[in-house]
Amino acid sequence: MEVDHELVEVDEFDALAIEVKLSPTSTAATDEVEARALWPLVAEASGKYPAKEHAKKVAKELGARDGLIYLLGQESQRYEDSDMAPEFRQRRYFYYLSGAGFANCAVTYEIARDWLILWIPYTDPRQVLWYGTTPGIAECKERLHVDDVRYTFNLTSYLHRYLRQHPQTTVFALHPGQTPKLDGDGDGPPTGAAAPHIDTARLRPAMDAARVVKTDYEVALIRQANAVTSAAHRAVLERLRRLTNECELEAIFQATCMARGAKKMAYPVIAGSGTNAATLHYEDNDQSLAGRQLVVLDAGCEWACYASDVTRTLPLTRTRTRDGRLGGGGGAMIAPTPEAAAIYAVVERMQDECVSRVRPGASFRSLHARACAVAVGGLLRLGLLRGGTAGEVLALGTVAAFFPHGLGHHVGLEVHDVAGGEPLLLPAAAAAAAGGGRGLGGLGTRGRGAAGRREWVSPEMAAALCRGGGTASSSSSLGGGGRRLEKNMVVTIEPGIYFCREYIEAYFLTNAAHAKYIDKAVLEKYYPVGGVRIEDDILVTEDGYENLTTAPKGDEALRIINGS
Amino acid sequence: MEVDHELVEVDEFDALAIEVKLSPTSTAATDEVEARALWPLVAEASGKYPAKEHAKKVAKELGARDGLIYLLGQESQRYEDSDMAPEFRQRRYFYYLSGAGFANCAVTYEIARDWLILWIPYTDPRQVLWYGTTPGIAECKERLHVDDVRYTFNLTSYLHRYLRQHPQTTVFALHPGQTPKLDGDGDGPPTGAAAPHIDTARLRPAMDAARVVKTDYEVALIRQANAVTSAAHRAVLERLRRLTNECELEAIFQATCMARGAKKMAYPVIAGSGTNAATLHYEDNDQSLAGRQLVVLDAGCEWACYASDVTRTLPLTRTRTRDGRLGGGGGAMIAPTPEAAAIYAVVERMQDECVSRVRPGASFRSLHARACAVAVGGLLRLGLLRGGTAGEVLALGTVAAFFPHGLGHHVGLEVHDVAGGEPLLLPAAAAAAAGGGRGLGGLGTRGRGAAGRREWVSPEMAAALCRGGGTASSSSSLGGGGRRLEKNMVVTIEPGIYFCREYIEAYFLTNAAHAKYIDKAVLEKYYPVGGVRIEDDILVTEDGYENLTTAPKGDEALRIINGS
Repeated sequence: MEVDHELVEVDEFDALAIEVKLSPTSTAATDEVEARALWPLVAEASGKYPAKEHAKKVAKELGARDGLIYLLGQESQRYEDSDMAPEFRQRRYFYYLSGAGFANCAVTYEIARDWLILWIPYTDPRQVLWYGTTPGIAECKERLHVDDVRYTFNLTSYLHRYLRQHPQTTVFALHPGQTPKLDGDGDGPPTGAAAPHIDTARLRPAMDAARVVKTDYEVALIRQANAVTSAAHRAVLERLRRLTNECELEAIFQATCMARGAKKMAYPVIAGSGTNAATLHYEDNDQSLAGRQLVVLDAGCEWACYASDVTRTLPLTRTRTRDGRLGGGGGAMIAPTPEAAAIYAVVERMQDECVSRVRPGASFRSLHARACAVAVGGLLRLGLLRGGTAGEVLALGTVAAFFPHGLGHHVGLEVHDVAGGEPLLLPAAAAAAAGGGRGLGGLGTRGRGAAGRREWVSPEMAAALCRGGGTASSSSSLGGGGRRLEKNMVVTIEPGIYFCREYIEAYFLTNAAHAKYIDKAVLEKYYPVGGVRIEDDILVTEDGYENLTTAPKGDEALRIINGS
Repeated sequence: MEVDHELVEVDEFDALAIEVKLSPTSTAATDEVEARALWPLVAEASGKYPAKEHAKKVAKELGARDGLIYLLGQESQRYEDSDMAPEFRQRRYFYYLSGAGFANCAVTYEIARDWLILWIPYTDPRQVLWYGTTPGIAECKERLHVDDVRYTFNLTSYLHRYLRQHPQTTVFALHPGQTPKLDGDGDGPPTGAAAPHIDTARLRPAMDAARVVKTDYEVALIRQANAVTSAAHRAVLERLRRLTNECELEAIFQATCMARGAKKMAYPVIAGSGTNAATLHYEDNDQSLAGRQLVVLDAGCEWACYASDVTRTLPLTRTRTRDGRLGGGGGAMIAPTPEAAAIYAVVERMQDECVSRVRPGASFRSLHARACAVAVGGLLRLGLLRGGTAGEVLALGTVAAFFPHGLGHHVGLEVHDVAGGEPLLLPAAAAAAAGGGRGLGGLGTRGRGAAGRREWVSPEMAAALCRGGGTASSSSSLGGGGRRLEKNMVVTIEPGIYFCREYIEAYFLTNAAHAKYIDKAVLEKYYPVGGVRIEDDILVTEDGYENLTTAPKGDEALRIINGS
């Protein structure tokens, strides 16, 4: 099904009262910001979130003809010792079967009867003084494709009745901690019979298998998240010449998303300039841009709980003005240093070659191998690598010194979305051996509040992935082929090259086998580049791919930065 | 001690590349945004967060000559079933004794030895690729007034040694869940002796008593939070004529704070236009401004964990342009409707009269009574109230129909900061009777993620508070006088008048005693006003007060809105 783009109105960007007009291609925002928080705006024909379609998919993956699926939404929370609350975040498994983005709900699905009920909290109208209105039954029925909407105060008696009528049933729940509470509150006595059979093992794998291939409605939401994110990246480009601190990139990005109705980020913004670009999960975003060559901006908003995940790497160095002075004001042009431009060109080619190979049946491991091959070719040409052939260097995995993470991941209700069975890149065992993606085998403890992880690719894993030769058609020797892409998967393609001194020195320059391929003198010239990453969200289509990310990059980005 | 304001550099607002220059009085931001996330910038003479001074205050309130105070900082967290993490928020009690704003720390204070140790996590330098650097021992010693800084992997053995040396000691902890873990990890065997005496009852009241009166350093941080917040309110005023949706107010406010180094809000932004202004904790902020009379913007940032809390109410209605058309563009002037202007004037006077009465020894309950008296006088003049004298109406508490919350609260590490013994306004028992501040006796359940609460003032409580006659010198009859203000307390003064149809109809118009004083026909004219609240953060000084909030309001705000 094609989503009608006409539903998404183009309006003029005036939110921050900035004089720049955006080109029509980048302004797929909507006028109806009203509905942002709770309801998706980008709709399939029926306009309703396809909770019922998702429930059927899950039941099919579950392979069960009857039983009851029971999922709890996120409850309201408080910080301990405080009257403040963390930002509300809906549980993703619950949302997938309901589309309800607010607190204190539940959902039930009777598999045999094919009957999906959303349970919502009741709010007394007189409470509006304190909390405002929350969505009622009619509103939920209008927005969500479910069979019925009822108040949660009836849930326990519903469960009692269902269990009396189906004494042999299985209740499928996500976790032991999220099973139905069957005592109290019901209008009848608790079932005299034995406790129902509760299965907390099978639901999650079944839901993961369903979630990994997106419905068209989900694709439309990811597309909308990407449209807002792309507009926000463009807004940063347009102002980059006047910015002086990393925090300003974050401020402009978030404000642009918020003013377009996307209040939440899909993950913490990374705005890392200079050597901060070599910290893969840098989040401080508080340093001066002065004297830095590049800034990596990895930022994406959520739209109705669906993520976007986009990275751009932007130059910061100013060319000299006509009278020979180094430009410091709005007049000077920005252009990358030769080293930054060289690395950018390698990463750009890594990305282009991988994106162009996305299609149903393609092996993601082979794409990663392809990116490694391009990287090694580029680094050999620049003299950073030397003393061996591309094949020799690839066989050893030395490329992991500069490209130490996976090529990408699924995107959906989570920015690093569920893999649904087989992982895209590394077998689960390999990832666990690498410390669960926490890098370097769990050394040390992180000192800050920590968010999602990139998948760590060690030299040994890189070597194994590349043993297939890096051609898209061959299967990797790492676990044999790995996950093949399917139509309506959405994955990131996000190659990067980084110069993290501590990491390279500790694991590669002190290792003679790797060190002999690395030219230390040339490397010193590249440390100030920091790092380059380019990341887009790619939809697998019937016969190829569609790039959902429209944020400018490369030469187009540079033209926007310089106002031309 | 006076804080040297010269430390706070004034720089030009360029963050969002907006052309408007701010007046010097509103731009107390700093160049050194670097240090924002972890370290306070506004410093007393020594420049260090006064953790040691706070520890001494706590020990004094505790009345203990020896023993060990033990506090855990917030650990890194993850959402369940996700690799994403909630935004990091440091535990406030821990921060008060350390000043450390990052995860996985602890603090110990040996009372007899007067020895404060901050325990921080160790991060392997090679991990920088993944997580960046976290503050080290030298950095912490430079920024924080503590006696020692050590790595947490030594904490258990330190505790073992301390307990062996002080077998009769008491360990003071905040909660049963935050007591020291004494098994494993230590370098010696666990103490053969009996388990130490752990007291989880006395520490919290002692810390609350210490926290309620701020040190000069804390005042400086609250002042800085207010400076950034005030600049952000001003930024909204400057752009208000061009805005079309509530979300744009939130976007501009947050972006301005973030670009000045204040990344976190002290509480969720409330940008409620029209009738949304009558929802006290409205957070959706997603509706069109079209046709609305006023917008209430209740928004304040944090600075180094210290809150600001500021509300402004802004008109949205446009005057007719010279050719007689209703202005819709940037050309038309904005002016309040007669009804909005009348209500604003009443609230303005409520605030002015209360602020001017702030001084050491003043009773906060009397201030609240004063605000009620002004409100009743104003509403009688407008004809909204009628049929009785001001004294009669005050005695019944009918004013709570329009002013249903407390006049204010302490501000500090929490936006609704600890009261430290006696509450400012209502006795704890009265607040509990009102449903713990959740409004109307706990009716219903809120459907959204919920944040802090305003204190609900019922008609009965309002009547009791006003029985003293509303003069600042008399003590209220509600519990007898109540908490007196002291030097270096910081409190909000935030009167409001609201027209919440559901609330007024359900509790006042259906109650004959109240209904006879309310003119329903006049009230209908005022429902579209929604509500007005004006809120500033007031420091109690030696002989009066200082208003820490410099955000424009009233006529000055209107001039800025209209660009004059």
